[in-house]
Amino acid sequence: MQSDIEIANAAVLRPITDVAYETLGIPEEHLVRYGHHKAKVDLPYLTSLAERPLGRLVLVTALSPTPPGEGKTTTTVGLTDALHGLGHRSVACLREPSMGPVFGMKGGAAGGGWSQVVPMTDINLHFTGDFAAIAAANNLLAALIDNHVHHGNELEIDVRSVTWKRVLDMNDRALRQVAVALGGHANGFPREDGFDIVVASELMAIFCLTESYADLKRRIGDIVIGYTRAMKPVTAREIGADGAMAVVLRDALSPNLVQTLEGAPAFVHGGPFANIAHGCSSVIATRAGLRLADIVVTEAGFGADLGAEKFVDIKCRKSGLRPDAAVVVATVRALKYHGGVALADLGTEDLAAVEAGMVNLRRHLDNIRHAYGIPCVVAVNRFPTDTDAEIAKVVDLVAAEGVRAYPATHFADGGVGAQDLAKGVLETLDSPSPYTFSYTYDDDLSLTEKVEAIATRLYGAGLVTWDAKARRRLTRIETDGYGGLPVCVAKTQYSFSTDPASLGAPSDHELHVREVRLSAGAGFVVVVCGDMMTMPGLPRDPSASRIDLADDGTILGLS
Amino acid sequence: MQSDIEIANAAVLRPITDVAYETLGIPEEHLVRYGHHKAKVDLPYLTSLAERPLGRLVLVTALSPTPPGEGKTTTTVGLTDALHGLGHRSVACLREPSMGPVFGMKGGAAGGGWSQVVPMTDINLHFTGDFAAIAAANNLLAALIDNHVHHGNELEIDVRSVTWKRVLDMNDRALRQVAVALGGHANGFPREDGFDIVVASELMAIFCLTESYADLKRRIGDIVIGYTRAMKPVTAREIGADGAMAVVLRDALSPNLVQTLEGAPAFVHGGPFANIAHGCSSVIATRAGLRLADIVVTEAGFGADLGAEKFVDIKCRKSGLRPDAAVVVATVRALKYHGGVALADLGTEDLAAVEAGMVNLRRHLDNIRHAYGIPCVVAVNRFPTDTDAEIAKVVDLVAAEGVRAYPATHFADGGVGAQDLAKGVLETLDSPSPYTFSYTYDDDLSLTEKVEAIATRLYGAGLVTWDAKARRRLTRIETDGYGGLPVCVAKTQYSFSTDPASLGAPSDHELHVREVRLSAGAGFVVVVCGDMMTMPGLPRDPSASRIDLADDGTILGLS
Repeated sequence: MQSDIEIANAAVLRPITDVAYETLGIPEEHLVRYGHHKAKVDLPYLTSLAERPLGRLVLVTALSPTPPGEGKTTTTVGLTDALHGLGHRSVACLREPSMGPVFGMKGGAAGGGWSQVVPMTDINLHFTGDFAAIAAANNLLAALIDNHVHHGNELEIDVRSVTWKRVLDMNDRALRQVAVALGGHANGFPREDGFDIVVASELMAIFCLTESYADLKRRIGDIVIGYTRAMKPVTAREIGADGAMAVVLRDALSPNLVQTLEGAPAFVHGGPFANIAHGCSSVIATRAGLRLADIVVTEAGFGADLGAEKFVDIKCRKSGLRPDAAVVVATVRALKYHGGVALADLGTEDLAAVEAGMVNLRRHLDNIRHAYGIPCVVAVNRFPTDTDAEIAKVVDLVAAEGVRAYPATHFADGGVGAQDLAKGVLETLDSPSPYTFSYTYDDDLSLTEKVEAIATRLYGAGLVTWDAKARRRLTRIETDGYGGLPVCVAKTQYSFSTDPASLGAPSDHELHVREVRLSAGAGFVVVVCGDMMTMPGLPRDPSASRIDLADDGTILGLS
Repeated sequence: MQSDIEIANAAVLRPITDVAYETLGIPEEHLVRYGHHKAKVDLPYLTSLAERPLGRLVLVTALSPTPPGEGKTTTTVGLTDALHGLGHRSVACLREPSMGPVFGMKGGAAGGGWSQVVPMTDINLHFTGDFAAIAAANNLLAALIDNHVHHGNELEIDVRSVTWKRVLDMNDRALRQVAVALGGHANGFPREDGFDIVVASELMAIFCLTESYADLKRRIGDIVIGYTRAMKPVTAREIGADGAMAVVLRDALSPNLVQTLEGAPAFVHGGPFANIAHGCSSVIATRAGLRLADIVVTEAGFGADLGAEKFVDIKCRKSGLRPDAAVVVATVRALKYHGGVALADLGTEDLAAVEAGMVNLRRHLDNIRHAYGIPCVVAVNRFPTDTDAEIAKVVDLVAAEGVRAYPATHFADGGVGAQDLAKGVLETLDSPSPYTFSYTYDDDLSLTEKVEAIATRLYGAGLVTWDAKARRRLTRIETDGYGGLPVCVAKTQYSFSTDPASLGAPSDHELHVREVRLSAGAGFVVVVCGDMMTMPGLPRDPSASRIDLADDGTILGLS
């Protein structure tokens, strides 16, 4: 089989104006084109559609993944293509890939095989400049903070308590922890600081939860950048940064439209981390999709304990959006991994391990149906090493849970490989739901109770414990009036617990909270459990060294 | 009179496809549109024009400016509009504004009054993402350097001697001097570092001197990022960064086409500083203009001692381009300033001061004609406070030098205000030149002799002195085989000397070289005289605090 970039480079793309008009009815004058195959859809036009009925929303999530991932993006694209092929007006809503990891180990994130969004190299690199805009706005605030302190510090900011970090869309471990403003008087007041990758920033989360220009400015103004010596929170509004930052983000706020390899439309817009942030593409794109199409297929990051939980408890809670069905991506490989097979041996048939690993998927299916109240099906994303017996086993095991599982081969076959899945999804959408959608917790619980609700109801934890410092922070945040916000748990995606090696469905484990961070502009409180990397590094042999530009301008080696 | 942004926002723009086709004959399929009013012109298309005859090249430069500047960009736009209005196929080639200063004091840089390029807010903010791409490529190299050291340092880089800095397009004094890789083992080897603003980077200079994809990759590979402990230069090619960096810059390399308020075409592409770098827009854009139009009007930064010198000695030397005429922008205000009048009093008529200040303009005219060998005219860019007597005085004084001066009111009147100037330029272009174009120095002089040639022939300096450290660096650079490169003098733009307060035409002064830097990829050696700021700061009351986004998306307060 060809590589992702070979397939993507050989694809014959339709002009984005045709895709926009023929699949979604968007007139050309409302498109802001970026070349021939990318466009932003004008925000005022989308706002003008406010009275249109909404289509139906399908959330793609997964069991707890193996390190290489189980193919959520690929399945989202394949399912959209299948629905499109069946004559339904469907659109995918995906996160924008971060450029940093492209030069590291992970590579791009625009799907794979015959289920990709294109133009693949554009999407994986600068795309329409959204991440650069978010970085610029973020770093403008950082510069204004240090500038305020330098010119007299009227707000009495305590430089030791500044929590607003600078960002780059780059894997650069040397910037994780830095000292800034060195070199004497003219360069300001020295302090400790650090850089995060753009996708880990609060501003990225704000961007993805924003509904309008006014809402964007309000949220930015609400950002707490740090504290005074008397521990009073200082906001971006007090720094006078909100207007200029909103201006920097203005154009980026219009969602990006591209196409799948099969010519179905896809909004690719925003891309927050699914640990420190909520891991879903933008509300603006989802809403645009629901007004323009009959079915929106969207994904949330990592497993259903992380991305889907945040989709429900943060994105849905804040926007009023509701998923009508969920697709849980499972693989034979991941089930065997949870059943105790080592990563290197996942290519060998092992029906017993598949069955043993089912505990992980089972808990996710329970959570989705009974905690979130969303009807679901399972997509069994088939890999070349899977045997027919293993696939049949998964279907049976899932059926025993009262859920339908559909083997899917969209990676190798494109949309036609996900047609059974698409029919299953349509059936689910057309049947009355036996569940009632609900959040995991109510707004009026304390922050502690919210974390406990997630930990015990979803993760199977026995208790939640807190570092003394995290506990003090939490109290401070509640005292400052932010106790009504939802929580955003940052933990490993590999396990229901905080231990990435604890596979399957661990029970009665301890969820230890190491750190608490306020994201007042995004509107949630981040609860950090275990180690969390907000600035990745590059590996010993980074893919940057294999990426090359031919003399004729062809991009080589991007994966 | 309306503000710049009021004029720009009220302008009715033509679709960029129409501008491209009707003014320059560029077919739509070779445009990579960025919205309705910006486009990149595909590089392969431009390459296909290689056999076309070249148009004529007009260089806009200036006398030594006052701090607010004398209107070079405005004059470049006004002159292009005037030529366009007279029926000539003309195009402006301008530098892209840096976003950082937009939020500081300086504001935007897309012309002013009725001589602007539009869309003004886009051009001043993200534009087509070129600066973001340059920053990303620059910072990718930085990350790869620290990553190489972290993973065993096979090249034996001495971290104390790494000269490659990170960059942001932001005025952020706190990043001038930093310590990176703090926080322990996992974050790499701590070292001192610093950030420059994007326009001050070597990569920006490379970008602007590049001729093709292959040339770009070669130049990037040649960058010297630092030294081994044995003082052997280490290149970006050895780090394995050249291919990936070229990929990051690929799309940016196609020049950006926009329009003036009067619908004339303008390439706005690249924007290096005129002190630490060569201060001219891209060779690719200039060459594109010369193949597509009959007359290209382009500007070089600061006064003719800096931008024009580098245009000749760096850009022309490397590209083979030749200016056919120069326009020297002078103002009554700047002449009075050089004649001893304080900045606050420049609005008061003072004929004697105009005459006294003529020494500055006179030396520039001599340099342009006799050192560079370019025929020239003077544009007297009229300000509202100038009296008719003062304007007449300038015309007379310039005439006494054997040069024609044309008062111009394009700021207030658009192209029609520069029609006399345009006719003067056409006359100069159509007359045989009495001068022979030449560089200030030959390639085979030593680096010391090159600096001495510039200092004595152009600046009127009596001697050049060197810090011991700068002298050692120079010797090292020559030992390493870079002695054949041209030099790029970084000094104040306000004076022929290194003292910004030494106005007029100082003679027999000392040019003291404080520092020497190698830009091996760009292909020049930077000679730093006096203080030089490569990362600006924000003022006490930054314009960011006045920039705002209205609820309907209108951008307010940008100047």
